[in-house]
Amino acid sequence: MRLVRIEYGGAPQWGQVAGDTVHLTRGMGGERTGETAPLSGTRLLAPAEPSKIVCVGRNYVNHIKELGNDTGELPKEPGIFLKGPNALAAEGETVAYPEWTENFHFEGELALVIGQQARDLTPENALEHVAGYTCGLDLTARDRQKTDLQWFRAKAADRFCPLGPWLETALDPSDVRVVTRVNGETRQDGRTSHMIFDVPTILTYLTRYVTLEPGDVVLTGTPEGVGPLSRGDAVEVEVEGVGVLTTRIG
Amino acid sequence: MRLVRIEYGGAPQWGQVAGDTVHLTRGMGGERTGETAPLSGTRLLAPAEPSKIVCVGRNYVNHIKELGNDTGELPKEPGIFLKGPNALAAEGETVAYPEWTENFHFEGELALVIGQQARDLTPENALEHVAGYTCGLDLTARDRQKTDLQWFRAKAADRFCPLGPWLETALDPSDVRVVTRVNGETRQDGRTSHMIFDVPTILTYLTRYVTLEPGDVVLTGTPEGVGPLSRGDAVEVEVEGVGVLTTRIG
Repeated sequence: MRLVRIEYGGAPQWGQVAGDTVHLTRGMGGERTGETAPLSGTRLLAPAEPSKIVCVGRNYVNHIKELGNDTGELPKEPGIFLKGPNALAAEGETVAYPEWTENFHFEGELALVIGQQARDLTPENALEHVAGYTCGLDLTARDRQKTDLQWFRAKAADRFCPLGPWLETALDPSDVRVVTRVNGETRQDGRTSHMIFDVPTILTYLTRYVTLEPGDVVLTGTPEGVGPLSRGDAVEVEVEGVGVLTTRIG
Repeated sequence: MRLVRIEYGGAPQWGQVAGDTVHLTRGMGGERTGETAPLSGTRLLAPAEPSKIVCVGRNYVNHIKELGNDTGELPKEPGIFLKGPNALAAEGETVAYPEWTENFHFEGELALVIGQQARDLTPENALEHVAGYTCGLDLTARDRQKTDLQWFRAKAADRFCPLGPWLETALDPSDVRVVTRVNGETRQDGRTSHMIFDVPTILTYLTRYVTLEPGDVVLTGTPEGVGPLSRGDAVEVEVEGVGVLTTRIG
């Protein structure tokens, strides 16, 4: 099932998608209210209300190599960093090219949203705590990643995390294709089966240290092919079985 | 004025402190509701409801030196990292010594809580966006800070940010004493006038990249004297003009 978050009567509202109809619900994955809205023409919002956005870096071997971070050994544990809710942007939104970077990169990723509070998960029960899967664009100021103490402005600036268009609840995340296109040209084309740490392993690791709350977002890392963006570019992140997230660079 | 967040009738409630009386208010800094509670015997909660906790690293010269991070040059820009709301702990709480670190450090700091949405602040108007000041303890797994890709579990694990006991709204943050004691012994004794980047400069820098929301927390960095904790330790962070935050290590 597809869960959307839309603007309805001037306020954010969750719903379930059935064809072109959105059945409004009480919160993410909640009961239907009885009201409906058309999907076409409705403004989609980022499908998450996170207290934090937790991201995995260096989770695909060929991406580690392309950035020159290959030490000859695979990471023994996931490399994690945070964004705040200020980073969210929605399907179709324009993100301004920041004037303080000269190397603004796209990183298309499988993203997921937590459905119930999670602490000390196991690989066996981890996926039960996922509300759904979506497409994430981990926008990155590559130059600032190198110059700064930590990846704050490089990764966590306003609108650096476009997410959407909706949550797909029924996805098996173990082997789906993740494609990123810039102006229609394919730039990244990976499969989640190539992740160093798969989704159950990531969630097990994270919840050893932090409590994940309903609505929290996890970005699972990007495959090879990342590269710089220019003003006016249109970036599409497509996750097989979910859909396409489109972001414009302003 | 002192603003507290307390447990009242089983729910979180903001109030103003007058002697031993808490005048309950509608939200942080809001109108009085007419109800009161006694301060003594009331459970204090962390005085913030953040969407993010933004921290400054390496903001005192002698702290940079003690960690061996002295390059002979002062940082040109603040070094920033994030914690999530999961990191909050309240006055008097016990924080379990994590079993995955062998070098768990205290870092006492001046903290502040944002009062109104802030973006593109200037040094002149920055302090107008602060709701109040409090004591912060930036708990740090020093060993994991060195081994990990980013400072995620080193800094952002559950309860790694004790905060309190209340917000002082009238403080001038430019030159207050910040003292950390462990089991009654003074271990850190600094003054905010020794910061490399003062509070208006920090807020101006941050809001160039992120929107700060009401309730967001900013930790301003720690002076020299950080060190390891043991199970059973009692840590006190005292900010002159605010009060004392006590944390027990379990």
